[in-house]
Amino acid sequence: MQERVASFGFELKSQSGAARLGLLTTPHGVVRTPAFMPVGTVGTVKALYFDQVKAAGADIVLANTYHLMLRPGAERVARLGGLHTFMRWDGPILTDSGGFQVMSLSKIREMSEEGVRFRSHIDGSRHMLTPERAVDIQCLLGSDIQMQLDQCIELPAEPREVERAMELSLRWAERAKRAFETRAAPGQALFGIVQGGTDAELRRRSADALVGMDFPGYAVGGLAVGEGQELMLRTLEGVLPHLPTTKPRYLMGVGTPSDLIKSVQRGVDMFDCVLPTRNGRHGLAFTWNGKVNLRNAIHAEDPSPLDPQSSCPAARDYSRAYLHHLIRSGEFLGAMLLSWVNTAFYQELMAAMRAAIAEDRFDAWAEETLSKIE
Amino acid sequence: MQERVASFGFELKSQSGAARLGLLTTPHGVVRTPAFMPVGTVGTVKALYFDQVKAAGADIVLANTYHLMLRPGAERVARLGGLHTFMRWDGPILTDSGGFQVMSLSKIREMSEEGVRFRSHIDGSRHMLTPERAVDIQCLLGSDIQMQLDQCIELPAEPREVERAMELSLRWAERAKRAFETRAAPGQALFGIVQGGTDAELRRRSADALVGMDFPGYAVGGLAVGEGQELMLRTLEGVLPHLPTTKPRYLMGVGTPSDLIKSVQRGVDMFDCVLPTRNGRHGLAFTWNGKVNLRNAIHAEDPSPLDPQSSCPAARDYSRAYLHHLIRSGEFLGAMLLSWVNTAFYQELMAAMRAAIAEDRFDAWAEETLSKIE
Repeated sequence: MQERVASFGFELKSQSGAARLGLLTTPHGVVRTPAFMPVGTVGTVKALYFDQVKAAGADIVLANTYHLMLRPGAERVARLGGLHTFMRWDGPILTDSGGFQVMSLSKIREMSEEGVRFRSHIDGSRHMLTPERAVDIQCLLGSDIQMQLDQCIELPAEPREVERAMELSLRWAERAKRAFETRAAPGQALFGIVQGGTDAELRRRSADALVGMDFPGYAVGGLAVGEGQELMLRTLEGVLPHLPTTKPRYLMGVGTPSDLIKSVQRGVDMFDCVLPTRNGRHGLAFTWNGKVNLRNAIHAEDPSPLDPQSSCPAARDYSRAYLHHLIRSGEFLGAMLLSWVNTAFYQELMAAMRAAIAEDRFDAWAEETLSKIE
Repeated sequence: MQERVASFGFELKSQSGAARLGLLTTPHGVVRTPAFMPVGTVGTVKALYFDQVKAAGADIVLANTYHLMLRPGAERVARLGGLHTFMRWDGPILTDSGGFQVMSLSKIREMSEEGVRFRSHIDGSRHMLTPERAVDIQCLLGSDIQMQLDQCIELPAEPREVERAMELSLRWAERAKRAFETRAAPGQALFGIVQGGTDAELRRRSADALVGMDFPGYAVGGLAVGEGQELMLRTLEGVLPHLPTTKPRYLMGVGTPSDLIKSVQRGVDMFDCVLPTRNGRHGLAFTWNGKVNLRNAIHAEDPSPLDPQSSCPAARDYSRAYLHHLIRSGEFLGAMLLSWVNTAFYQELMAAMRAAIAEDRFDAWAEETLSKIE
């Protein structure tokens, strides 16, 4: 059984440069940070059993409000005992607010001060997402960590438009917080989201305003949307000093192993990304020696595994030749094994980062690791 | 480690009516009969880990010569240590001859006395399959039980055509046997295949001729191709008395749970079929209370599992509501869980049949079981 606590907390254990080692406490257990959250979009981390996700070392997973509100529906999940019971994951769950997917998946949408009206990409049904409804849905799902509804815009955008979206997101943060305070269960947390594109001044204003509202954690949203790693890191460097050191920082939707290392190096504590599973389905494996494209003919007769030292059976026990064959043949097992490899690698990476911080050798570790994997 | 023996054998342990309990000994271990062989078409039982196949109770799996000869290629599999090593299954493997798939999958083919010339359905490359080459390929794969190349024709067909194909298959059986005797490893076995459509006289002639060649086991081919259960069973009843009781009988490509029960009742020892995994991928579960279509809206809020008594975690621990959601969402995990449910159910069914034979109550068991599952 998981330890159940009714309070949310974050404890900073140690630092190595700006890199932070911490413990996040939630109603469904403790999360070691820096943490990578595997993405369980519609209530399943694609092509994996949750047992594998847990055994790989993941303390927390992410689920998508947009997907779950459309199918099976938040009220239905609540009637079935909440998302933990529904998808059989008894650890912490973070849910996003749905805002990002509305913009990326729903072709028909209308933004207003009140919220966003849109049509389901599945069946065309009409829905309205407001800051209050996003909190409602996440309460129905039973998320340990909720995200406020924010307005995500595509970059590049006019400065005026970036500012308008940032300010709207701040007003939505206030409304989300008020809704959350009356509806959430003990120990659950709501994070605010810093917006403002790649404009340092807008980001600073967003961070300052959110910190003024006193959230238990802060996310940096609207990055890793095509601006490139350098600009992402520069934006991060502008934002993080304005966030309290006593609260967790979550960089949404990021990223590659290199993105993770360099962001932790700048003080980020939490991440989520579909990359490990999506790349796995497409035959691309992450390893300590860099990316391996299993579709490549070079692997066709290679009896060696991806990584004989790996903690993951999929990386350790299966030949590259077999993985190549499975991926070329479009077999389920290819996607299953490589999603597993990558999910485990991302957790190994986070564990290695935590060890390097604990031993105060993060920069040296990062340099050495980046030289191997990039 | 599996027990390794260098001789093939079949021991009939007991009977209940015509139903037979036996043990098949192969170089990679013992198979309890009646046995159902999960189908690992291209070297993977679709959407399952082999650990799950083994834990479900399967002693032996089937792989398809046609698929493997085209991709990754028999010589390549041999260079990689054989099929057992390649796909990580250390139990017995039966391979078919490729003949059936040439007819069903390759659009361009040309039949002659020598063999069948065809083009790959994957890349259009040209191949020739002869009785000797089919043996060669199966030797390269390292199959414990090989099948002779036969000519499968679509039913209904002209009696003249059925007879011609049956006689050609007999000549190919002789050629296969000669090739096998010079090339196979100790303990491997080659089965002959009885053909002759639904014509009792042709079937009898085919069986008698094959028995005259003294194979270590006999398959009944060309059934379950649309003729209906009644005609299939009647044909079986005509064939089985002409096969020696001391040798295993394998009904190829069959079938539904009802088909299996009624065929065991008539003296069949071995089966293979894609039904459990294919139906699983499509949302259809086999249970002791009959088929369950998880796509059906009736399951959308049902928190109960498919079978709380099941030995299979997928049938026991996951709600119908979650399975419904996964299947409706087209998620990998839906296919994975239901393929697992069905593979385990088929093995539970075989285990129950073996128990009923051992206790000499097969007919009573069959009647009771059929009344529940049909």
